Amino acid sequence: MAVASELKEEIIRQAALAKRASHRLATLSSEAKSQALTAMAQAIEAAAGEVLFRNEIDVEAAKEAKLSTALIDRLTLNARRVREMAQGLREIAALPDPVGEIISEWTQPNGLRIQKVRVPLGVVGIIYESRPNVTVEAAGLSLKAGNAVILRGGSEAVNSNRALVRCLTQAAATHGVSEGAIQLVERTDRQSVQELIKLRGLVDLIIARGSEEMIEAVMSQSSVPVLGHGKGVCHVFVDQAADLAMAERIAYNAKVQRPGTCNAMETLLVHQAVAERFLPALTKQYQAAKVELRGCDRTRQILPGLKPATEADWRAEYLDLILAIRVVESVDEAIAHINRYGSNHSDAIVTEDPATAERFLREVDSSAVFHNVSTRMHDGGVFGLGAEIGISTQKVHARGTMGVRELTTTKYVVRGTGQVRE
Amino acid sequence: MAVASELKEEIIRQAALAKRASHRLATLSSEAKSQALTAMAQAIEAAAGEVLFRNEIDVEAAKEAKLSTALIDRLTLNARRVREMAQGLREIAALPDPVGEIISEWTQPNGLRIQKVRVPLGVVGIIYESRPNVTVEAAGLSLKAGNAVILRGGSEAVNSNRALVRCLTQAAATHGVSEGAIQLVERTDRQSVQELIKLRGLVDLIIARGSEEMIEAVMSQSSVPVLGHGKGVCHVFVDQAADLAMAERIAYNAKVQRPGTCNAMETLLVHQAVAERFLPALTKQYQAAKVELRGCDRTRQILPGLKPATEADWRAEYLDLILAIRVVESVDEAIAHINRYGSNHSDAIVTEDPATAERFLREVDSSAVFHNVSTRMHDGGVFGLGAEIGISTQKVHARGTMGVRELTTTKYVVRGTGQVRE
Repeated sequence: MAVASELKEEIIRQAALAKRASHRLATLSSEAKSQALTAMAQAIEAAAGEVLFRNEIDVEAAKEAKLSTALIDRLTLNARRVREMAQGLREIAALPDPVGEIISEWTQPNGLRIQKVRVPLGVVGIIYESRPNVTVEAAGLSLKAGNAVILRGGSEAVNSNRALVRCLTQAAATHGVSEGAIQLVERTDRQSVQELIKLRGLVDLIIARGSEEMIEAVMSQSSVPVLGHGKGVCHVFVDQAADLAMAERIAYNAKVQRPGTCNAMETLLVHQAVAERFLPALTKQYQAAKVELRGCDRTRQILPGLKPATEADWRAEYLDLILAIRVVESVDEAIAHINRYGSNHSDAIVTEDPATAERFLREVDSSAVFHNVSTRMHDGGVFGLGAEIGISTQKVHARGTMGVRELTTTKYVVRGTGQVRE
Repeated sequence: MAVASELKEEIIRQAALAKRASHRLATLSSEAKSQALTAMAQAIEAAAGEVLFRNEIDVEAAKEAKLSTALIDRLTLNARRVREMAQGLREIAALPDPVGEIISEWTQPNGLRIQKVRVPLGVVGIIYESRPNVTVEAAGLSLKAGNAVILRGGSEAVNSNRALVRCLTQAAATHGVSEGAIQLVERTDRQSVQELIKLRGLVDLIIARGSEEMIEAVMSQSSVPVLGHGKGVCHVFVDQAADLAMAERIAYNAKVQRPGTCNAMETLLVHQAVAERFLPALTKQYQAAKVELRGCDRTRQILPGLKPATEADWRAEYLDLILAIRVVESVDEAIAHINRYGSNHSDAIVTEDPATAERFLREVDSSAVFHNVSTRMHDGGVFGLGAEIGISTQKVHARGTMGVRELTTTKYVVRGTGQVRE
């Protein structure tokens, strides 16, 4: 109990410090913020040796604990990855400052001049897992948006994160960023998440990145609003009016180019009128890329020997070289399948028929819908929005790719000449 | 246990029906929605007799249960209030349709044409207390935004709400609004709220209107994102450079015009340089309006005999003819007081000094900040935004007055010519 209450006090102390820092950050000039971000980039490069040394300690421990190869890969830094992190900060420095943007303004007949202005959120808490580059991106994007940030990284990366945050805070402090603006929660047990997500009033937003279970737990238990980087059960629907060569390129790219990402395709839907022409050639390509295919009954009539797809397959986020295939009777059946089994992430139609395309784009209830484009293109960078802090599949505050603008809020600024309510 | 699980099943059944209805609603034309809203207005007027009869049952029960006069006043309908509800629906019908609005669009160098489009949220759950007019407003605004709505009104209004919802659903059904688009949770115990706020995946947003305790409980326990109509500890700061006649009008209006509203002033801050000139005349006006005044030590030197204001007064939302007054040394002290004790709702400065005004507008961290305007002007109608579903003091999704637009979300619609990720 003594330990639990100490932890609680420590996190409240951090959050209160962050809140104070956020008030000063909110008034920092765009120039000061860009200079701080550039200094942070230089500091990381200058401290590359120390960062890599600390990272090695984490990687060794992860290997000893026999963590998965995928996790160790995400955890491991090298000289190139350090350069990329620094480069990321320089790109954030170069983005336009979202703070102060006048989103709309108008004058009422009684002379009230009303503006809706973009302002920082205040304090953002970010809960994430092994990747140390998230530490740097999250700190950079939060600072750009004028927010203080409390970083709760995974236990497996704690030495890397400590070294990075020390570097970032020292560099930022030389450009007017207050103490407390970038903080790491050093305790990486579950309890530290529990305390952080209960600090409504001190923390304005929680961003959760990681396993579905973790995000689910945070969303259910948090009293602070949460944005989750959601799971991606993404679809490509090949319509009867598709350009089949284009469909092949898109379906191949969406599955194979980087299967471990949230915007990779997990289920391919094919219109019955083209399934027999389309599937055999694509299957050869998939097999060459070692993609395991699972099909519905009609798919298996066309591609005998395929493993049958079960109900669980339609809901699966494989994040791997596995694909479920279903033959559908119509665009209606495709839309119904996606709205039923999908995760409202990224879904594409391939068709040359504009009316069918528009129906799909309108009726599929996902954060991004694509016509003749691979689902892999759902990305802040590809969209031209700059660095991305995740992709939201929920509907409030931010939907789809989230960048620096999604780390802000608005306020009404109203100027008058003595107007009162009658 | 049997009863609890039946309730759970019933609410899940309602939410699933709402989800299905929401898919159809999302594609309903603007014309159909306006016609449905107009028909709903007519239906309420036509059924006024029945509605008032049912309302009387609620009012009688409330009197027997010795509920507060204020609550009974909010609960009571009459012919004028029924007409106002109908008129409210007609105004919502006349608003521009937010659904389908293209918020931004651009083309990337690779030819991707990207749009950010406004779309309905899906299913909105609204938890509120005694006022039956909220039933009508919430149903109207939700329908306009293309959402299905689940209404969980208070037990004291259940007969009124049943009559209103029956009326609204019958009228809406004649214009293509599916069954399930407007639903009332008939069980008004606490358990029904508990079940509703756990339906993440079926319910996309919870709006909570009512006591601070209720909102607090909903926010802490909900797994669905919540927007709360927040408490208003609003301030007027009279600067040393204020036009004191204007300051008197604003300070009087902000406290007295309708003290029970969330945007009424609760604490008056006065710059020390003008306190002696300003306070005595204003005090006479307040006393004539039977306002109870409580002051800091310096205020009580100017106005001897005033009750002292305690720490609790600075945090109090009186919603009544009571006012706390504090003399401050500077605009800095005023800003610090508001950011410390306020509720980030609506705060005003009265000054003729533009630089001081701008500092206040920038540094006060509230959903709406006013220069030479009464805080009572924070209202969707006054701002020209149409009907209001509440004022949000939180920072995610919606901040300040919330209208029909805040009941929507966005999606990315991306059109291409075969683009894939390299």
